[in-house]
Amino acid sequence: MAEFLYGHWAVMETLRSGKRSVEQLLIGENIEEKGMIAEIITLAKNKGVKIQRTQRRILDDLSNGANHQNTVVRVSPYPYSDTEDILSLAQARGEKPFILILDLLKDPQNVGVLLRVAESVGVHGILIQERRSVAVTPSVVNASSGAVEYLHVAQVNNLVNAMKDLKEENIWMVGLEADPNIAPIDKTDLNIGLGLVLGSEGEGMRRLVRDTCDMMLSLPMRGHLASLNVATAGSIALYSAWQARGWEGWSGIKK
Amino acid sequence: MAEFLYGHWAVMETLRSGKRSVEQLLIGENIEEKGMIAEIITLAKNKGVKIQRTQRRILDDLSNGANHQNTVVRVSPYPYSDTEDILSLAQARGEKPFILILDLLKDPQNVGVLLRVAESVGVHGILIQERRSVAVTPSVVNASSGAVEYLHVAQVNNLVNAMKDLKEENIWMVGLEADPNIAPIDKTDLNIGLGLVLGSEGEGMRRLVRDTCDMMLSLPMRGHLASLNVATAGSIALYSAWQARGWEGWSGIKK
Repeated sequence: MAEFLYGHWAVMETLRSGKRSVEQLLIGENIEEKGMIAEIITLAKNKGVKIQRTQRRILDDLSNGANHQNTVVRVSPYPYSDTEDILSLAQARGEKPFILILDLLKDPQNVGVLLRVAESVGVHGILIQERRSVAVTPSVVNASSGAVEYLHVAQVNNLVNAMKDLKEENIWMVGLEADPNIAPIDKTDLNIGLGLVLGSEGEGMRRLVRDTCDMMLSLPMRGHLASLNVATAGSIALYSAWQARGWEGWSGIKK
Repeated sequence: MAEFLYGHWAVMETLRSGKRSVEQLLIGENIEEKGMIAEIITLAKNKGVKIQRTQRRILDDLSNGANHQNTVVRVSPYPYSDTEDILSLAQARGEKPFILILDLLKDPQNVGVLLRVAESVGVHGILIQERRSVAVTPSVVNASSGAVEYLHVAQVNNLVNAMKDLKEENIWMVGLEADPNIAPIDKTDLNIGLGLVLGSEGEGMRRLVRDTCDMMLSLPMRGHLASLNVATAGSIALYSAWQARGWEGWSGIKK
């Protein structure tokens, strides 16, 4: 079944990445062809995508009332990857696996932010559970600024079993918690085959998921607040892990 | 003039911190006294705050249609601090100053997230410019989960002048950018008197602000996306700086 993605960056990166087939670009009527809208239209033309002007209220409907920025694309469903794809990418790059594992996260905004950061630090893929968790919905694509269109996201039947399989591949399962009784994130060398495991908003990690972790690390906090939002905490941990890997794959200067 | 703050955590932390006088607690009628609502009511009673049940649409009005979670407090205006307060706090704690400097940020959500992280890493204060920048509005308080009620936020007339004054105090102004030609964030020891400077959404740092920085550092990125949201990038940089300070002030184990 077709899906409708919306928002400037989500639409732009979906067109650029080519991960899905784009069937149609819908632009609000009376919207000027300038800035990002002009860039998106040019890109769509180059890719041979049909472009149509349409009423704002239709765009509102197609995006379920979200902030679509007058830009919607009709696309094929998100092509999920599997664990094999993720491990193959790591091997092809000659890098130790770097995987993000999300345990029943519920908020598309949080998942989108995490995917955007995951793309920026070069994770090879993301594991989510098929049921009771956010999937790669249009709102996740939007919140990720389209980053998910460059990523391998694997939906697995049972997260604990998937984690156990990865452990067989010499990948360490490292859970993140905000607990002062757990060693901080920089006290273990994360330049290893790594599965970074994040618990859900409010409830944290399920017990079995936690028990399947090889080790727990904490994000220190010194103020009055009890915890950080999972998207913020996970973003910091992803960067901390990439820093431990010496910014591997970064094209910038490392002086 | 009185202000109305809303949302469970914003209201809870405002009551707890005592930074402002709380004149009244408004709770939606027919809302059960359980969970956080019960905690908030108990806290308000202990502090001698008048509690009133009120219609939902009144709460909607008082919070400008935001997600108030049936919980609103009427409070005195946010008491801004000045640079002196910030430096005194650093001195009282026996720590090198750690200051967050925001150049004309516009989005309350971004500022709220940054303030929440700033509180978690123990920054001594935040500088914002009085005009053309987000102030500590109720939506910022909400987005910070109430963290701002524990922080020194100084509104300055001219950010560049304030930065110059801090440099006189031996505080280094370090700007953050996503530029592969700039050395990454971990290649300079940030265990110094530090002002971490963040540019605004979209436009980045103003030229004069950038020129006033003693050094620029970059947050590496290796994917297809050009930049991260300023709240995400700033959160990562704040933690990176605190990590460089050896998690100073953290009560957890540092093994």
